[in-house]
Amino acid sequence: MSADRFARLPEPPYYMVAFTSLRTDADDTGYAEAAERMLELAAQQPGFLGAESTRDADGFGITLSYWTDERAILAWKHQAEHAATRAIGRARWYSHYELRVAKVERAYGFGRTA
Amino acid sequence: MSADRFARLPEPPYYMVAFTSLRTDADDTGYAEAAERMLELAAQQPGFLGAESTRDADGFGITLSYWTDERAILAWKHQAEHAATRAIGRARWYSHYELRVAKVERAYGFGRTA
Repeated sequence: MSADRFARLPEPPYYMVAFTSLRTDADDTGYAEAAERMLELAAQQPGFLGAESTRDADGFGITLSYWTDERAILAWKHQAEHAATRAIGRARWYSHYELRVAKVERAYGFGRTA
Repeated sequence: MSADRFARLPEPPYYMVAFTSLRTDADDTGYAEAAERMLELAAQQPGFLGAESTRDADGFGITLSYWTDERAILAWKHQAEHAATRAIGRARWYSHYELRVAKVERAYGFGRTA
């Protein structure tokens, strides 16, 4: 479980999409299935590098997805099933979200050998 | 609770630090106090714009902090109490973390009026 939660990424520069969201109480099953399907689809997109995601018991979540460049992000935005699922998300699953597209300039990490 | 979890930010460009981490099982109280204190200290730093943070039941968390520019991020990195607390974090609270510094180029959001 542990290390699998972290994306394995190349050296910067690359792009990051930060998606911060608050869930409604509605349709947990449909949401979970769609979230899994979107990750599966994203991973098939050219330029997808990885993703990291977490959500607390209050329904506040952050998902980071990583991409080689802006063109890859735009292609994913216009992917038809993804666009349709986003519309359902606004109608049903999210009460509020914020999305930020950013260029990662540097990165470093820490990990125990234990 | 809801809308308070989201940072209120100016229009891009600005900078984001994405801190993805996995907690150890150790010292929840000390960790929670330090996390609160670090947010309080960060908010006093010049150039701090806001933060968003969440962690799931498995201890996997993402914190996004927002800054006017890279100089503000470096000043926060070298803030003495923050640097000392990071050392405790590596020794005690985190088994793994990744930190990425990125320039936010565009942003948009969605929120219900309900």
